Amino acid sequence: MNSSRIKRLLRAVEKGTTSVEEAVQELRHLPYEDLGFAKIDTHRALVKGFPEVVLCEGKTTQQVVKIIDAMVKRGSDVLATRASSEVAEAVCGRQPACRYDEVARILLIQKKPGRKKGKVLVVTGGTSDITVAEEAAVTAEVMGNRVERLYDVGVAGLHRLLDHRKKFAGARAIVVVAGMEGALASVVGGLVSCPVVAVPTSCGYGANFKGLSALLAMLNSCASGVAVMNIDNGFGAGFFAGLINQRTR
Amino acid sequence: MNSSRIKRLLRAVEKGTTSVEEAVQELRHLPYEDLGFAKIDTHRALVKGFPEVVLCEGKTTQQVVKIIDAMVKRGSDVLATRASSEVAEAVCGRQPACRYDEVARILLIQKKPGRKKGKVLVVTGGTSDITVAEEAAVTAEVMGNRVERLYDVGVAGLHRLLDHRKKFAGARAIVVVAGMEGALASVVGGLVSCPVVAVPTSCGYGANFKGLSALLAMLNSCASGVAVMNIDNGFGAGFFAGLINQRTR
Amino acid sequence: MNSSRIKRLLRAVEKGTTSVEEAVQELRHLPYEDLGFAKIDTHRALVKGFPEVVLCEGKTTQQVVKIIDAMVKRGSDVLATRASSEVAEAVCGRQPACRYDEVARILLIQKKPGRKKGKVLVVTGGTSDITVAEEAAVTAEVMGNRVERLYDVGVAGLHRLLDHRKKFAGARAIVVVAGMEGALASVVGGLVSCPVVAVPTSCGYGANFKGLSALLAMLNSCASGVAVMNIDNGFGAGFFAGLINQRTR
Amino acid sequence: MNSSRIKRLLRAVEKGTTSVEEAVQELRHLPYEDLGFAKIDTHRALVKGFPEVVLCEGKTTQQVVKIIDAMVKRGSDVLATRASSEVAEAVCGRQPACRYDEVARILLIQKKPGRKKGKVLVVTGGTSDITVAEEAAVTAEVMGNRVERLYDVGVAGLHRLLDHRKKFAGARAIVVVAGMEGALASVVGGLVSCPVVAVPTSCGYGANFKGLSALLAMLNSCASGVAVMNIDNGFGAGFFAGLINQRTR
Amino acid sequence: MNSSRIKRLLRAVEKGTTSVEEAVQELRHLPYEDLGFAKIDTHRALVKGFPEVVLCEGKTTQQVVKIIDAMVKRGSDVLATRASSEVAEAVCGRQPACRYDEVARILLIQKKPGRKKGKVLVVTGGTSDITVAEEAAVTAEVMGNRVERLYDVGVAGLHRLLDHRKKFAGARAIVVVAGMEGALASVVGGLVSCPVVAVPTSCGYGANFKGLSALLAMLNSCASGVAVMNIDNGFGAGFFAGLINQRTR
Amino acid sequence: MNSSRIKRLLRAVEKGTTSVEEAVQELRHLPYEDLGFAKIDTHRALVKGFPEVVLCEGKTTQQVVKIIDAMVKRGSDVLATRASSEVAEAVCGRQPACRYDEVARILLIQKKPGRKKGKVLVVTGGTSDITVAEEAAVTAEVMGNRVERLYDVGVAGLHRLLDHRKKFAGARAIVVVAGMEGALASVVGGLVSCPVVAVPTSCGYGANFKGLSALLAMLNSCASGVAVMNIDNGFGAGFFAGLINQRTR
Amino acid sequence: MNSSRIKRLLRAVEKGTTSVEEAVQELRHLPYEDLGFAKIDTHRALVKGFPEVVLCEGKTTQQVVKIIDAMVKRGSDVLATRASSEVAEAVCGRQPACRYDEVARILLIQKKPGRKKGKVLVVTGGTSDITVAEEAAVTAEVMGNRVERLYDVGVAGLHRLLDHRKKFAGARAIVVVAGMEGALASVVGGLVSCPVVAVPTSCGYGANFKGLSALLAMLNSCASGVAVMNIDNGFGAGFFAGLINQRTR
Amino acid sequence: MNSSRIKRLLRAVEKGTTSVEEAVQELRHLPYEDLGFAKIDTHRALVKGFPEVVLCEGKTTQQVVKIIDAMVKRGSDVLATRASSEVAEAVCGRQPACRYDEVARILLIQKKPGRKKGKVLVVTGGTSDITVAEEAAVTAEVMGNRVERLYDVGVAGLHRLLDHRKKFAGARAIVVVAGMEGALASVVGGLVSCPVVAVPTSCGYGANFKGLSALLAMLNSCASGVAVMNIDNGFGAGFFAGLINQRTR
Repeated sequence: MNSSRIKRLLRAVEKGTTSVEEAVQELRHLPYEDLGFAKIDTHRALVKGFPEVVLCEGKTTQQVVKIIDAMVKRGSDVLATRASSEVAEAVCGRQPACRYDEVARILLIQKKPGRKKGKVLVVTGGTSDITVAEEAAVTAEVMGNRVERLYDVGVAGLHRLLDHRKKFAGARAIVVVAGMEGALASVVGGLVSCPVVAVPTSCGYGANFKGLSALLAMLNSCASGVAVMNIDNGFGAGFFAGLINQRTR
Repeated sequence: MNSSRIKRLLRAVEKGTTSVEEAVQELRHLPYEDLGFAKIDTHRALVKGFPEVVLCEGKTTQQVVKIIDAMVKRGSDVLATRASSEVAEAVCGRQPACRYDEVARILLIQKKPGRKKGKVLVVTGGTSDITVAEEAAVTAEVMGNRVERLYDVGVAGLHRLLDHRKKFAGARAIVVVAGMEGALASVVGGLVSCPVVAVPTSCGYGANFKGLSALLAMLNSCASGVAVMNIDNGFGAGFFAGLINQRTR
Repeated sequence: MNSSRIKRLLRAVEKGTTSVEEAVQELRHLPYEDLGFAKIDTHRALVKGFPEVVLCEGKTTQQVVKIIDAMVKRGSDVLATRASSEVAEAVCGRQPACRYDEVARILLIQKKPGRKKGKVLVVTGGTSDITVAEEAAVTAEVMGNRVERLYDVGVAGLHRLLDHRKKFAGARAIVVVAGMEGALASVVGGLVSCPVVAVPTSCGYGANFKGLSALLAMLNSCASGVAVMNIDNGFGAGFFAGLINQRTR
Repeated sequence: MNSSRIKRLLRAVEKGTTSVEEAVQELRHLPYEDLGFAKIDTHRALVKGFPEVVLCEGKTTQQVVKIIDAMVKRGSDVLATRASSEVAEAVCGRQPACRYDEVARILLIQKKPGRKKGKVLVVTGGTSDITVAEEAAVTAEVMGNRVERLYDVGVAGLHRLLDHRKKFAGARAIVVVAGMEGALASVVGGLVSCPVVAVPTSCGYGANFKGLSALLAMLNSCASGVAVMNIDNGFGAGFFAGLINQRTR
Repeated sequence: MNSSRIKRLLRAVEKGTTSVEEAVQELRHLPYEDLGFAKIDTHRALVKGFPEVVLCEGKTTQQVVKIIDAMVKRGSDVLATRASSEVAEAVCGRQPACRYDEVARILLIQKKPGRKKGKVLVVTGGTSDITVAEEAAVTAEVMGNRVERLYDVGVAGLHRLLDHRKKFAGARAIVVVAGMEGALASVVGGLVSCPVVAVPTSCGYGANFKGLSALLAMLNSCASGVAVMNIDNGFGAGFFAGLINQRTR
Repeated sequence: MNSSRIKRLLRAVEKGTTSVEEAVQELRHLPYEDLGFAKIDTHRALVKGFPEVVLCEGKTTQQVVKIIDAMVKRGSDVLATRASSEVAEAVCGRQPACRYDEVARILLIQKKPGRKKGKVLVVTGGTSDITVAEEAAVTAEVMGNRVERLYDVGVAGLHRLLDHRKKFAGARAIVVVAGMEGALASVVGGLVSCPVVAVPTSCGYGANFKGLSALLAMLNSCASGVAVMNIDNGFGAGFFAGLINQRTR
Repeated sequence: MNSSRIKRLLRAVEKGTTSVEEAVQELRHLPYEDLGFAKIDTHRALVKGFPEVVLCEGKTTQQVVKIIDAMVKRGSDVLATRASSEVAEAVCGRQPACRYDEVARILLIQKKPGRKKGKVLVVTGGTSDITVAEEAAVTAEVMGNRVERLYDVGVAGLHRLLDHRKKFAGARAIVVVAGMEGALASVVGGLVSCPVVAVPTSCGYGANFKGLSALLAMLNSCASGVAVMNIDNGFGAGFFAGLINQRTR
Repeated sequence: MNSSRIKRLLRAVEKGTTSVEEAVQELRHLPYEDLGFAKIDTHRALVKGFPEVVLCEGKTTQQVVKIIDAMVKRGSDVLATRASSEVAEAVCGRQPACRYDEVARILLIQKKPGRKKGKVLVVTGGTSDITVAEEAAVTAEVMGNRVERLYDVGVAGLHRLLDHRKKFAGARAIVVVAGMEGALASVVGGLVSCPVVAVPTSCGYGANFKGLSALLAMLNSCASGVAVMNIDNGFGAGFFAGLINQRTR
C-alpha cells in the first residue's frame, strides 16, 4: 500500500480540509487504487518476454484480422494459434511479414527471431499427435529455444523409445504429447531427470472420451517430475517447457 | 426347434383331436419350450469347469454362510471372493475344510486341487495393487494353473520391469494389475506375444476417480493383445487368464 | 544386466586405467544401456506374428499413403483399419495388390494368406453393430483364423440366439459385439465355456452416451470369462480372439 | 377458469362499483386463484389411493417420529421406507400398531390391509439385490397387489431364468431388480408381453459406479415394454407395478 | 405377424390343403427370417401384439429397404422409427402402402388399423419436444390406443398446464415429454393417479448435456407413479403407455 | 402483453361498448393463445413485465415464423433468442418492424422501448465470450435497463480489469461472462458489493468439456454474492440482472 | 468491521488524539490480519456490508477457534457456517457472546443485530432440505433482512405450494432449496416476478449423484429469473437474496 | 542412495579390498532391492537426485515399516508421504532418526540436509489447502530448495494477494494450491514470469466434485506458464517446482 497517499489524506483530515465523511468515502476505495497498478498495467509481453498470443479458435476471421492488424500497428510481434487455413489466408493477405505453419496451425510475425539456445525435446506417442506437438515445438522455437523432435515412439513398441534415449541427454525440459492411454509421459518421466511437460491429445476413439483417458493417465503418473497441460494444448506445453529451458543454467 | 413335438401337434390338428384355437395357444408358447432347455439346465460349473463362485461383497454374513453350507451339502467345491475376515471366521467355524487367504480375501473349499500346468504370470505396478493381484493369482491356481508373480514393477522405473523380462518367457497369459495411470498394461502388451488381461485398480487418489484413470488408459491401450476387466476385478482376470492357459497348446 | 560390460569397467578401475570418477559417470548411465535392447529392437511384427497395423483415423490421407508406401517397400504386409473410402482410393491407386473391405473399413495387402484354422465366432446384437463386427472378423481372418458370423441375435429376442446355439460349439474364442445395453456379452458368457471378448459399440442414442452404456455393462458382466475392449474396437477384439484361437490346442 | 368469479368482477366494473384500476389489480392475480385449487388440496393419498409415504433417509429420527405421530393422529395409514433399525425402534416404541420389515427396511401402519389381487412378479438378478426387491414387493403388497418373487436368476445362468418362465404367466406387471450389467431387464422384457419396471441397483463394484452401469443398460434396453426407476428405488417400482396391476382387467 | 396368419395355416392343415410337413417348414421360419445381416423378429410381434419395429437410425438406407421388403413379403405390418426423409423416400417408392409421418419420423405399413380404445395422453413441456412426442403418439395409435395431445405446457407457466387439467381425466396412461429441467414429469405425476411414462429429451443447451439434466430429474422425481425411458425414446414411451392402456379395465 | 390492453378492455366494459360475456371470452383467452404446437404465454409477460420470449434453437424456421406472427397479431412485443440468420431473414421478411442483432442473435419487435435506467454492467473474460455477453446486454436493454460493457478483461491480465474498476461503480448488477477457467466471476465478485450473475461459456477446448470447467468454477466461487446461469445462457443472465436493477433503489 | 470503527479512527486524527503515523499503521492492518495460516478479511466486510464469514468445514477445530478469537479481538462480528457441534462447543466455551444454531449449523457473534427489513422468502421442497434452507435463512437474517419460511412444498403435491402462494406476495427475493429433481425452482420461477435464487441439495439417492440431478435441473430451468448456487450452499443463497432485498426499493 | 556409496564401492575395487566379482554382485542389486511385495527403487534416486519416496496411502502400516526398514539398512534417505499418525508412530518407534511433520503428513529421514538455495514460493487460496501446500513445501525443502509460504490469499479478496506481490519477486517457481474454483492459478500466472505449478485440492463441497472443479479450472487456465498436478498432489508439485528451481540460473 502506497502509504504516502494515505498520509496526505489523513493530514487533510488532521488539518480539517477533508471531513471525516469524505475520508471514509475515499478510504473505502483505497485498498486497490493505492497498490500502484500502474506497475502492472504494462503489457503481458513485458512480463512473459514473449510476443502477444492470439487463440484464433472461437473467434471470427474478422475478429482475428482486426486484432492482428492492431498488434502490428503497435509494433508487436504476433503468435496466433489454432489458425485455420481460411484465417491464415485472410491475415497473410494483409500482413506480408506473416508466415503460416500449416501443421502447427500457427501464424507468426516476428521481427527478430531470438538466438536459439538450450534444448527442449518434443516427443510423441503416435503420428496423429504431431499437430499438437508441432504447436508446442514452433511455440518454443519462437521463444528462442532450440527444439528437437522425437515422434512416434509410443510405449507399445518400447524399443523405439529406448533406441533414441540418447536424445534425452542434454534436454532441459521434455514435452511429451500422447493420446490414447497417455502412458508415454510416465515412461519418459521415469527415464529422465529434467522436468516433463505432458500434453494429452484427443487422438483415439471410444472410451478415450476426446482426450480424457490420456489426461487422467498423465495426472496420475507414478513418475515424479511430470506436470500436465490441457488436452491438445500444444502452445501451453511449448511455452512452459521454453520457460524452464530459458531459465536453466 | 424340436420339430417332432410340432409335428405331433399338427397331426392332432389334422386329425381333428386338437382344435385350431387350442393349437394357436400351444404354439404361442413354443419357441422356448421346444429349444430343449434341459440341455442348459446343467450347472454353470459343468459349463465353465470350475467350482461355483460366491461374491461375498454385498451379501450379509448370514447369506454367505447359508449359500456355502448348501454348496458343501451338494458336494460342490467353493470359491468365495471379497470375503471379509468376519465372513471368513463365520464360514471357517462351520466348514473345517475351508481355508482363508487373507491377502486375496478368498475362501476356498477344494477337495482335490488339480495338477498345476502351463504358466500364468501376474504382474503389478505397485505394492498397493497386490490385494487384487492375489485374488487373480489364487483364482488361477485354484483352476489348476501354474502361477508366477512379478510385483511392483511400475513403468516409472522401467528397469525394474525390463530386468525381469525373462519371467515373461513361457507365460501363456499375463495378468497386469495396475492403478494410477495403468500404463503397465500397454508396456507389457508391447513386450510379449501372449494375451494380456489388464485389471485397473482403484489405487491412487484425486483424478484417478476410484480407478477410472487406469480403466480408461487400459481400454485405450495402443498395444494390441490387451483386454480389460472391471476395476479391482482380480477374480475375473485370474479366471480369464486361466481359461486361456488351460486351452493353450 | 549384461555383466560382462560391467566387469570390463570394474577391471579397468582395478587396473587404474579408469578413474573412480569416470566409472561413476559411466555407471550412472548403465541400467538401460546394458539391458541388451538389441533384443527388443526387432519389429513388433516379429513379436506378435502379424502384419504391421495402421490406424487410419486421425491421420491425413497423405500420411497413410506415405506409411503404407514405406511398408510395402520394406516388404511388409499391411493391415490398415478405419480407412475411409477416400483413403482407400488413394492407397489402392498406388498399390494394386491392395484390397479394400468397405464394410469392415479395412485395407489389406497380404502376400500369402495363412491357412485358416480353429474357429472364432463373431456375434452381434443388431444390424448396426456389423461394421465393428466385420472389422473384428476380417482382422481375425487375416491372422489365419477361421471365422464364423452370427449377426443380429440381441437379447430382446432370446430365441434368435438360442436357435443358433449350435454355432457356439467348437468356437475357441467368441467376439460379442453389441451396443445399447450390451447384455449380449453376459448372456453368451453364461452359455459357453471358451473366452468371450466383448466389444461395446456406440450404437444407440440418448443415454448410451456414445457407447458408455454398453461399455459399463460389459465391464460389470456377471458372467465369468468375459473381457472387454475399447468402444467400437473391432480390430482389437479380432486380434485378441485370434491370439487365443491360434494358441488353443 | 371459474368464469362466474370473473363475471362478478366485470359486472362490478360495468356497474362502476369497481374501478378499472382495481379490476386490473385483481385480474393480475386471477389465472391461478380462479382455477379452483380447493379441488387439488385434497391429500395425495386421495389421488394415488395409497397411504402417505415417508422417506426416512435424509431425515433425523426425531423428524420421522414427529411426522408419523402426526399422521397417526390424523388417522392416516403409514408407509415409511429406508427406515434404519434405530428409526424403527423409535417409531415402534410409540406406535404399537407399527410393524417393521427389516429386509425391506419398511415401517408399516395399515389398519385394514386390502384384499390382494392380480399378480405382480418381482425378479432379481442376484442375492444382493434382494433388499431393493423386498422394498418393491412389500410396497406392492401394501397397495393390495398379490406379489410373487423370483430371486437370483441373473442372465449369466440363463437356464435358471428360463426354468422358471412359467412364473411369468399371469403377471400383469413385472419388477426386474438387477445391479452390475442390468441385463436381466432386457432379457425378461423380450420374454413377456406385460410391462416391465426395471430397477437398477448399486450392487457391484468398480466401473458399476454405484449403479450407473445397470441404470444406463436398462435405459438402453433393446426390448420394448421396459421403463426404468431410479437406482435402488424399490418403492417406486413396487408402486408403479402395483398401479398397473390394480388397473388391469 | 398376427395370430390370424397362424390360424389360416392351421385351418389349411385341418382341411388337408397343407401337409403337416409343409406346415412344419413354414412354422420353423415363423419366429424370424434371416436376411444375413438382420434377423426379422416376427415372434416378438406375437408376444407383444404389435407389428415388427425397425429402428432406422444406425442402419444404411439399403439395409432398411431390404428389411422392410422382406417383412412386407411375409405379410407383416411395419413400423419403422427414426426414418430420415431419404429413407422414407426409398421405402415409399417401393411400398405404395407405406405412409410417412414427417414429424414423428415414422414409416408405417398397417393393413387393418385396430379400433382405437382407451386413452393415452401425450404431454410436452415445449415446442421442441414435439418430434419425440409425436413418435410416442403415433406409436400408441398404431397399437390401437386412442391418443390425445397436450403440447407446450411446461412448468414455467403453470397455468397453461392447470387450465388443461381436464384432459388428464380418463387417461389411463400419460406420456410426459420434456427437455431442459424435465420438471413436468413430477408436476404431472403429482396431479394424476394413473401411471406416468416420462421421456427426457435432448432439447436445451449447455448444462443439459444432451438430455442428461432431464433424465436425472425424471429418475429422481419426488412424485410416485413415474417411470422413465431413454432420452428421446418416444417410441418406447408410446409403446409402454399403450401396453398399460390396452390392459386397463 | 401489457396491462394497458386489459385496461382498454375493462374501459370498454365500463363504457358498455363490450358486454360482460364478450369480455369473459376475451379474458379467458388472455393468458395464452394456443397455436396447436405452442402455447404463447402472454400471461408470463404480465408477471415478469417483459415481452414474450421465444427460444429459436430447437424449433424449425416455420415454427418460429408462426409463433411470431401470432404474437404480433395479438399486439405483443417479441424477443427471440438464438435466431440463426436464416430464421432472422424469414421473420424480418414478414415483420418489417423486426430488427435483428447478428452478434447477440436476437430478433426484436418492440413498439415503445422503455426509458433506460439504472446500470447493468456486462463483463467478459475474452473476445470469444462476446456473443453470449451481447445476448445478455441486449436482453437487459430491451427490459429498460441502462447497460455498460467491459469486454476482454480476463484474469490472466489482471491490470486490464483493475484499470477499469471505475466502471464497477454505480452498477446495480454485474453480468460476468467467461469461459475456460471462469475465474473472472470470483475476482469481480471479490471487488464489488452488488450481485454478480455469472455465465459460464463453452469457449475453450479440451478439458473445458463444452463449458463444464467454467460452470463448476463459478458454482464453487469463493466470493460471496455470485449466482450462476446455465452455460452460454446470456438471455437468462441479462434478464436476471435486469430484474435486480429494475427493483434497486 | 463497519465504517463506524474507521470513523472513530478518523475522528481521533481530526481531534489530534491519534497521530497520522499511528493512523497509517492501524489502517495498514485494517484490510486483513495475518494469522499465519489464515488472512482474516475484514476488508470484504467493508465491501459487502457483512460480518466476516468463516467456513468451518475443512478446517480443524483449533484453526476455527484461533480465527474467531482474532476476529473478536479486532471487534468484528462473526458468522461461521458448517460448524459441527464439536466446533460449536469449543468456540462457545471461549466466546460467551457466541450463539449456535444447530439446524443451520451456524455460529454467530453479532453485537447489534440490524433492523430487519424487506422480505426474503425461503422455500423448500422437502423436510430433508431444511438444514440448507436454515443456513440461508439465518444468513439473510443476520444481514438485516426479514425472512419468511415456507417448507416442504415440493412439486409432487402442487396444491401445498399453490395454497401458500400468498406468501410470495411482497417477497423481494426468493430462495428455493430442493434436492431430487429440483423442479421447485422452475415452478416458483414461473409464479413470481422477483428474482429466484435456487439451491440444489444433495438430498435423494441413486441417480441424484449427490445433488447433480437438482443442480442440472435448476441450471436448465425453463423459467426466467432463476439463478443457481452450488449444491447445499445455503449461505451463498441467503447472502445473495439478502443483497437483492437490501437494495430493492 | 547417492553416488558416494558407489564411489566407496569403486574405491574398494581400486584398492583391491573388494573383488570385481563381489562388486558386480553388489552393483547388480543396486538399482532396487526386492522385498517380495515392493521393489525399492534406489536407481530413481540416482536419476532424480532425491531420496526414495514412499506413498503410504494404500499400503498397510506393516508394509510401510518393512519398506522403510530396508531403505534405512541400505543407507538410503527416506521421504514418506501421506503418512497417518498411526503409520508415523510405528515407523518413528523403530527409526529414531525419523521425524514426522503432522501437517504435511510427511515422514523424513535425511542424514545431511542439503544447503537451501534459490526460492520456491508456495501459495494457497485458503486455510483448508494448507495440508497439501505443506506437503509441497516440505518436499521442496528436503530437495534442497529455499521455500517461502504465502497462505490464504484467495482471489475473492484480491488485495490480500496483491499486498504480498513482493513475495513473488525472486521466486524461480511458484506452487499454487487451491480448491473450490481454483482461480488463483490463473491470477498468479498472469502476474509472474516464472513457471507456475498448480495443484487443485479437494477442498470445497457440492459441485466441486472432490477437486474436479479446481482441476478443470487449472487445466483451462487462460494464463500461460501454468502446468497442473493431480488433485491434492502436494508432493508432485513440490518436487516439480524444486526441479525447476534447482536447475535455474
